[in-house]
Amino acid sequence: MKLHWSPRSPYVRKVMMVAHETGLTDRLELVRSVVAMSKPNRDVLRDNPLGRIPTLVTDDGTILFDSIVICEYLDSLHAGPKLFPPSGPARWQALRWHALGDGMLDTLIIFRNEREQPPAQQNPDWLENFALKITTSLDTIERETGELDAAPFGIGHLALACALGYLDFRFEDLGWRNGHPRSAAWFEKVAQRPSVKLTAPAQE
Amino acid sequence: MKLHWSPRSPYVRKVMMVAHETGLTDRLELVRSVVAMSKPNRDVLRDNPLGRIPTLVTDDGTILFDSIVICEYLDSLHAGPKLFPPSGPARWQALRWHALGDGMLDTLIIFRNEREQPPAQQNPDWLENFALKITTSLDTIERETGELDAAPFGIGHLALACALGYLDFRFEDLGWRNGHPRSAAWFEKVAQRPSVKLTAPAQE
Repeated sequence: MKLHWSPRSPYVRKVMMVAHETGLTDRLELVRSVVAMSKPNRDVLRDNPLGRIPTLVTDDGTILFDSIVICEYLDSLHAGPKLFPPSGPARWQALRWHALGDGMLDTLIIFRNEREQPPAQQNPDWLENFALKITTSLDTIERETGELDAAPFGIGHLALACALGYLDFRFEDLGWRNGHPRSAAWFEKVAQRPSVKLTAPAQE
Repeated sequence: MKLHWSPRSPYVRKVMMVAHETGLTDRLELVRSVVAMSKPNRDVLRDNPLGRIPTLVTDDGTILFDSIVICEYLDSLHAGPKLFPPSGPARWQALRWHALGDGMLDTLIIFRNEREQPPAQQNPDWLENFALKITTSLDTIERETGELDAAPFGIGHLALACALGYLDFRFEDLGWRNGHPRSAAWFEKVAQRPSVKLTAPAQE
C-alpha cells in the first residue's frame, strides 16, 4: 500500500501510530508528500482531490482518506486487539476522544497558519478564539484521564496523543502542561509506547 | 436528546438529514447555537470544548461530536436500512465519499472566512489553493456519479449533497455546475429526497 506521508503531519502520525500498533508498517510504502495551505501538491491532488495527507492507495488501487478512514481500514487488516471498538458506548467514547484530538489539531493547524502571517494580516479575534478552544479542550482531557486509563487503549488515545505531541512540537510557547498535571502525566505514560516513540515528529 | 443546532451549518444539516432518513427527528430537541470563528459560544463550549456544532447530548448525558460520530450514533438507533455499511468495500467507499464531502466543507468554511476579511488581510495564495481544491473535488464527483448511483444510499451521498448544497448557498459565484453536468443531474435527483428538501439552509 502507498501512503502519502510526511514526518511532520500530525494526521499522518496518527496513521503511522496505528500501523505500528497493528503490526502493519511493513505493508506501507511511504511517499514523502509536502502540502501547505498556500501551495498545492499536484501528486497528492491526483490521488486526493482535497490535496491533503495522509492519503492511502491500497493494494487493489482503492484510494482512502481522510486519516480516520485510513486508521479504521488498517484496523480491519489485523487479527490483534482492535483500536476501534466495534459498537456500543465504548465505540462512541473512543470516537468522541478521537474527534476531540483531531478537532484540536484542526484548530492548531489554522491557528499556526494565521499566526505565521504578517502581523497586519492576522485576525486577533481568531487567534484569541483558537487559544480559548485549546484551553477548554485541555481542561476536558484533564477531567477525563481516569476514564482514558480505564478504557481499552484505542484510536481515541492515539488521537489525543497526537494533539498533545503537536502542542509540544509547534506550540511550546503555550506551556500546555501548566494547569494540566494529570494530562501531562497521562501523556508521559502514553509516550512510552513504541508507536508513539517511533513516530515523534522530526525537528526541522 | 439535545442537539446544538443552527439552520445554516452544513455539518448540522448532515445530522438533520440522517435524522430524517432514520425517522428520529422527534427524538431531537434542537437548541439554536450560533458559532463563528471570531466569537466563542460559551453554551456550546460547555458541552463541546472545541465550541463547534453539531454537538449532541444523548438521553443518558453522553456528549457526542463531531458530526460523523453523531450520524453513526443515530444510525445505530433505528432498525431500517443502515446509512453506514457495516464493513468491507462498501464501508470504505461510503466513508471516503463522506470524507470528500466533509473535506470540501472544511475547505469552503475557511475559504469563506478568508474571503470575507478586509482585502488587505486576505491571502491570495490561500484563496487560489482553496478554489483549486474545490474544482478537483468537483471533478472527482463528476467521474463517480455512476458509482454513487450504483451504491446503496448512505452517509457518503448525504455528505456530498451537503457540500454541493453549501456551494449553492454560499458560493453561487463559483458556478459549480459549469463543467460538471453529471454531478448537477445527480444533485437534482438527490435534492428530491425529503431529508434533503426539509433541511435546505434558511436564507438570511
